[in-house]
Amino acid sequence: MSTIEHEEESRGYAVRAVDRWRHGTSTHENDFVAEEVPVAMVYNGATFAVMMASPHDLDDFALGFSLTERLIDDPSQLLQLETHALIEGIELSMQVTDNAPGAHLEKERQRLLPGRSGCGICGTRELENAVRHDGAVGEGATVSRDALEYALQELKQRQPMNLATGAVHAAAWADATGRILHVREDVGRHNALDKLIGAIHRAGIDVNDGFALVTSRASYEMVTKAASAGIALLAAISAPTALAIELARSAGITLVGFARPGSHNVYTHPARLRAEESRETP
Amino acid sequence: MSTIEHEEESRGYAVRAVDRWRHGTSTHENDFVAEEVPVAMVYNGATFAVMMASPHDLDDFALGFSLTERLIDDPSQLLQLETHALIEGIELSMQVTDNAPGAHLEKERQRLLPGRSGCGICGTRELENAVRHDGAVGEGATVSRDALEYALQELKQRQPMNLATGAVHAAAWADATGRILHVREDVGRHNALDKLIGAIHRAGIDVNDGFALVTSRASYEMVTKAASAGIALLAAISAPTALAIELARSAGITLVGFARPGSHNVYTHPARLRAEESRETP
Repeated sequence: MSTIEHEEESRGYAVRAVDRWRHGTSTHENDFVAEEVPVAMVYNGATFAVMMASPHDLDDFALGFSLTERLIDDPSQLLQLETHALIEGIELSMQVTDNAPGAHLEKERQRLLPGRSGCGICGTRELENAVRHDGAVGEGATVSRDALEYALQELKQRQPMNLATGAVHAAAWADATGRILHVREDVGRHNALDKLIGAIHRAGIDVNDGFALVTSRASYEMVTKAASAGIALLAAISAPTALAIELARSAGITLVGFARPGSHNVYTHPARLRAEESRETP
Repeated sequence: MSTIEHEEESRGYAVRAVDRWRHGTSTHENDFVAEEVPVAMVYNGATFAVMMASPHDLDDFALGFSLTERLIDDPSQLLQLETHALIEGIELSMQVTDNAPGAHLEKERQRLLPGRSGCGICGTRELENAVRHDGAVGEGATVSRDALEYALQELKQRQPMNLATGAVHAAAWADATGRILHVREDVGRHNALDKLIGAIHRAGIDVNDGFALVTSRASYEMVTKAASAGIALLAAISAPTALAIELARSAGITLVGFARPGSHNVYTHPARLRAEESRETP
């Protein structure tokens, strides 16, 4: 994929004046707030979706979104990305190979008359297509409880946008020892995961060698995106939903929720988590 | 609006087995997890969108979503709602009056060929339509800092689904003294606000007599939904985005962020918040 950038990317946040009220006293201060920008995902000239996203790491976003939303089957199908900063937002104009699923959106529209699909589920037109069942993931890494805790601790130090704004989610990739290799942030939790998936593909990482950690809840779409990227272990800081658990079970994904210092819940396929290191270092 | 329910509504959560890890020990327990169900929004036979939502208070959701996404201009245009529990999810089949914006989706599709719009922004096809500018809200209530704090405290006691699952957002309506009148919960923060807007419309509440409080961040879409419902003061427990601040400013909405015990930030139109009660009770 070749990347053409027409404007320098934003840092993801801006300064805004605020009336700050603390225990009976009001002060006027400046606050860092997260930017949130409409980003149009355009494939061979046709718009697939407009997402509200943090306007940075957009090359990772383009690749990750295209993979998890099945506009491409493989990174090699994404030939070129142009980032156009427009008044209304940002256009990610992508060229995909002729055999990519997203190559002929315009023609598909005329044939299917799919109509407006709205938010919540990307590109879904009808109820029967809402829940996607992906194939099972690979064997994946076995991860110790300590490695999970180590990654959790390290991630806290690696969220600069969230540190500044308190408004953004992070998705991280850690190796099997818990060392964090990549972190991506976004106002949307799905976008953060898409950016991470794009980043690990670009870095040539084997998804069977580590695990993903997200600072959000584990909803249905987070598990679906993980499944479509072949991620075998997904740990979320907050709660899963019932549907997320069901999909993780059927896709063979180990789903961890409420990952906190000293504790976590494993909802599916617990065999990928082991306790060894804990016993060695009492 | 007449409501026909074909199946008793869910409580919004289910029990799932979990491997709970606490400080080196693993136990097998049962956990309450939030349900998350595809809900198809169908207008006069045509599907507008499929949302992932908590499957309860769906009559409020139908009305609130229809209003904030402009499928109807007024509650009177929603004539009938049928709730169909299907294998794939839930269908909210609505009949709207012939002059409602959502009355002729099927025809509109054939004319506009709008194509898939994906998630993020409801029914948005192109970048130039992504950011909606609604008219300004009304004068609204003036609210003391203490009333805001009172509502915050009360809301904590009124989130049964979140208490059980830790996975859902709440949106609440409080009167100008901070007394909470309605709370709605959902796995999606937009849905929680839509449900609340439906509930306050059904209860005949004047939106100029109180304020809305949400347990989530204040993103662009939260402010847009508040604006379309005429809500003049929106307080969020977490951070706003830059775009949310911009839209709140232009719509005349008082936007409060990081609403916590003893502190909060006011990003726009601070005149609706006053300190009086604090001075009376030092």
